[in-house]
Amino acid sequence: MKKNHVVLLLHCPDQKGIVLEVSKFLVAHQCNILELDQYTDLENNHFFMRVKFDKGDVELSEKLLESSFEETVAEKCTMKWRMYFCGKPWRVALFVTKLSHCIYDILQRYRSNEWDIEIPLIISNHDKLAYIAEQFDIPYHVFPITKENKLEQEAKELALLKENDIDFVVLARYMQVLTDDFIGHYPNKIINIHHSSLPAFPGSKPYHSAYRRGVKIIGATSHFVTADLDAGPIIAQDITKISHTDSVQDLIRKGRDLEKTVLSEAIWLKLEHKILSFKNKTIVFR
Amino acid sequence: MKKNHVVLLLHCPDQKGIVLEVSKFLVAHQCNILELDQYTDLENNHFFMRVKFDKGDVELSEKLLESSFEETVAEKCTMKWRMYFCGKPWRVALFVTKLSHCIYDILQRYRSNEWDIEIPLIISNHDKLAYIAEQFDIPYHVFPITKENKLEQEAKELALLKENDIDFVVLARYMQVLTDDFIGHYPNKIINIHHSSLPAFPGSKPYHSAYRRGVKIIGATSHFVTADLDAGPIIAQDITKISHTDSVQDLIRKGRDLEKTVLSEAIWLKLEHKILSFKNKTIVFR
Amino acid sequence: MKKNHVVLLLHCPDQKGIVLEVSKFLVAHQCNILELDQYTDLENNHFFMRVKFDKGDVELSEKLLESSFEETVAEKCTMKWRMYFCGKPWRVALFVTKLSHCIYDILQRYRSNEWDIEIPLIISNHDKLAYIAEQFDIPYHVFPITKENKLEQEAKELALLKENDIDFVVLARYMQVLTDDFIGHYPNKIINIHHSSLPAFPGSKPYHSAYRRGVKIIGATSHFVTADLDAGPIIAQDITKISHTDSVQDLIRKGRDLEKTVLSEAIWLKLEHKILSFKNKTIVFR
Amino acid sequence: MKKNHVVLLLHCPDQKGIVLEVSKFLVAHQCNILELDQYTDLENNHFFMRVKFDKGDVELSEKLLESSFEETVAEKCTMKWRMYFCGKPWRVALFVTKLSHCIYDILQRYRSNEWDIEIPLIISNHDKLAYIAEQFDIPYHVFPITKENKLEQEAKELALLKENDIDFVVLARYMQVLTDDFIGHYPNKIINIHHSSLPAFPGSKPYHSAYRRGVKIIGATSHFVTADLDAGPIIAQDITKISHTDSVQDLIRKGRDLEKTVLSEAIWLKLEHKILSFKNKTIVFR
Repeated sequence: MKKNHVVLLLHCPDQKGIVLEVSKFLVAHQCNILELDQYTDLENNHFFMRVKFDKGDVELSEKLLESSFEETVAEKCTMKWRMYFCGKPWRVALFVTKLSHCIYDILQRYRSNEWDIEIPLIISNHDKLAYIAEQFDIPYHVFPITKENKLEQEAKELALLKENDIDFVVLARYMQVLTDDFIGHYPNKIINIHHSSLPAFPGSKPYHSAYRRGVKIIGATSHFVTADLDAGPIIAQDITKISHTDSVQDLIRKGRDLEKTVLSEAIWLKLEHKILSFKNKTIVFR
Repeated sequence: MKKNHVVLLLHCPDQKGIVLEVSKFLVAHQCNILELDQYTDLENNHFFMRVKFDKGDVELSEKLLESSFEETVAEKCTMKWRMYFCGKPWRVALFVTKLSHCIYDILQRYRSNEWDIEIPLIISNHDKLAYIAEQFDIPYHVFPITKENKLEQEAKELALLKENDIDFVVLARYMQVLTDDFIGHYPNKIINIHHSSLPAFPGSKPYHSAYRRGVKIIGATSHFVTADLDAGPIIAQDITKISHTDSVQDLIRKGRDLEKTVLSEAIWLKLEHKILSFKNKTIVFR
Repeated sequence: MKKNHVVLLLHCPDQKGIVLEVSKFLVAHQCNILELDQYTDLENNHFFMRVKFDKGDVELSEKLLESSFEETVAEKCTMKWRMYFCGKPWRVALFVTKLSHCIYDILQRYRSNEWDIEIPLIISNHDKLAYIAEQFDIPYHVFPITKENKLEQEAKELALLKENDIDFVVLARYMQVLTDDFIGHYPNKIINIHHSSLPAFPGSKPYHSAYRRGVKIIGATSHFVTADLDAGPIIAQDITKISHTDSVQDLIRKGRDLEKTVLSEAIWLKLEHKILSFKNKTIVFR
Repeated sequence: MKKNHVVLLLHCPDQKGIVLEVSKFLVAHQCNILELDQYTDLENNHFFMRVKFDKGDVELSEKLLESSFEETVAEKCTMKWRMYFCGKPWRVALFVTKLSHCIYDILQRYRSNEWDIEIPLIISNHDKLAYIAEQFDIPYHVFPITKENKLEQEAKELALLKENDIDFVVLARYMQVLTDDFIGHYPNKIINIHHSSLPAFPGSKPYHSAYRRGVKIIGATSHFVTADLDAGPIIAQDITKISHTDSVQDLIRKGRDLEKTVLSEAIWLKLEHKILSFKNKTIVFR
């Protein structure tokens, strides 16, 4: 995001005049709309909007803009909303286990400034990928997880996340199930990559299941993590075609390319403030 | 489109407050926004918008709504705009030559009410597909074209189109080049399907060229017809993967599936009033 | 297939020298290999092969070629095999209910000679699509199905199929479940199109389920029909991307384009003798 | 490749009995066929084959197998052929300039043993990516290129390649045109990634051209480098859909994901000995 650019994400029960109220507010504050996307969920009678605007060079404090919006627009329409200002980049924590394809894909984008983020730490239940953290000079914290110590270890992880002021968490093929309590600390702020086209083949060995069933496509799904395993709101999905000649190992190999692309797409959408969640589904403005 | 639904398509030089003006107008006339898509071309500093709204059951003449919009909004912003009201379906003319896949695809959608259109006539330079017109009970007019008689024949075709009150023309693998004069009568109202991923392989034998070059993908492109052959604004494109085992005949066969899908996608977008053309490119609201 | 062209499909337990035996046989009979595809299933230690060859102009009776192959090659290797000779086109029966997109797609290919088949009859549980059969001058038989009369009606259908010497059956969005008995008469000879990416969303309303789950892709699956509903060997699958803006009606509309393409792809593969079934999976030679 | 596995790639003028000769040879040497792919180019009357076989544990020197094949099979059929034995991994040189996405993608696969290769050196015309070579502990050689020194610098590069016993070269977004002389040293052994769907948009700024033309898809093409710029035999291609909302910067960003996938696919196919080149096209066995 460029200096002076602001993204406003909002949703509320549908009613006449929402666009008018928002645009009146923007003109009153001498803001210029750059992008406006709107969606009405007719089934639930609910209104969603994303506006990207340029607030110009006028001295206009972020706090003031926010409180003014709350008073003149949001209250009236019982909106849930948030403004994202250009400025300090989001702080992202990566969780990994043993597979390196997603983490390298993310770190390449990070290091080449494709994404304007900070990655202050990497957390793992295994030391296998410590060398990557070292290559990129990022602190790497290992918390081996057992049934017995999970809550305890998660408490330490949460402390680290708070301490590092983490905005959202990416599970880059992290092979542990998080507890509901952990997830509750980061609602719609934990993005996972699942290695199948959910709802097909949830669980831990989707490529083996796909092979057994003899499907002709394999997929990957990025989604927000909720208490319900592999059932959170889906952000992005893609597939690749396979054939009888592909062994399980081939599926795993081909799947990796999907996984990294589909995970990075979700992260990008999150960074661009293009995702809203509602009733276990996502609205993804393009 | 449902009763009372209206689509407003507009574009104008970018300036502050356009969204405000439009939404003020809609609220003033007790209209409720259903879909709003907006795009700003920063290079050309130009603003594009599509609004679908429900004008409610209030007695509100279409004429009045239009003149009111022109006076209170459009003039001020030097807009080019148009409102599309639910009501009489668009009248579409099909031009064909010898290949039947696109025309059947279109007629199936027409006959099953996937599209709310009327097809009062089919024009061809050849009698080969007359049997299809007969199957669907649609008048079929044959105008054989030679270098000498082209202008004359086109004049007759134009007369037929006017007579039948045609809204737009679909070239469903019509194998004749239209004259600039003909095209001038239907600016951005003639949709063609080209059997390659333009700008690759323009001209008349793209699958043969693709085969010779040894490409691994073939494509299809639907576009508005302009005086510049195969160079009009692109509406939709898609591809399919091929391999060395595919002969030219295989490319032609596989290509047909692309052609019909990509052509029908463009027609659908046109029917939904989702396309704006500007400087030889399209804005396609999704 | 051209005159003199023959396709040999075979499978047997893997062992050394199969290719040698087959190629010895072909050279001995002065046949020239045009295409050879081979696959070894290492898990089941099973060998699969497709050979397309030119048997030349020499007088060589089909019967003789077959009996010679059985004696000199097939017995030795305990093969299951079949030779397909150019000559009389396969006879295909279409089963339909109320949706016309797949049947038109098939009939267009049939009528334009894309496929070298005969369609001597269309069977339906409903009279809605009789007009299409009439357009193409194909007998249309209606057998309304209730829980009570299903076996009886299927008996009549089977009689019709035998009478018409049907080689295989295509369920072109036929909305009835066939009994195991019926299926038993046409093993791997009934192709169905299911409107989801199986195994996701089996059953009768997959687009509604997809909408509720908030997936970002929808799919279609063509498969052989077995006693296990929606669980037969998969032949082909494809998907299209969707977004939150797509209503259930949009999914149904977009899905139709997938359904017809994926069904026709399966039929084409069957006609080219490119499919072998083994242990509820398909080997699809490309 | 596993121990004892061998890949045989061959092509020759088509004639009867080639498969027989090859399979006789393999049985005579007690080899078991694992994969056999064959293709006949009917236009050029040319035969292509790839056989992967297990030569068993019998003591059988590679040299002997090769000379025996030459004498008993290859000479007779005037074949061009090569056998690839499991054993020492191929040695690959990477050429890069300033963009890091392809090189990280390759190094991740290398480091995680997805590919069984060695990368003894990275060559660049720029020092920008030296840090990556350092991360992975690979020698990085900088040869700045000017019009004047190109031949001289290439001579040094060639010396380095010979010295390091390089099997093939990957241009991972290397932004220099190689001379014909350089290319002549590695025929069909230099793989390049071009950032468009060739033949659309050859040359140096394809994303800018794609943006100007208003296409709805962008692509990437991996190909062997020949003296003819961007016109060598195509190995793999893929595309992604774009819209009017994508700026040139978006195209560049989205294109990077294609580039790395399409380049790595080509490298994988090369490593699996699945590519044959003939008359400026590739046969890619799948």
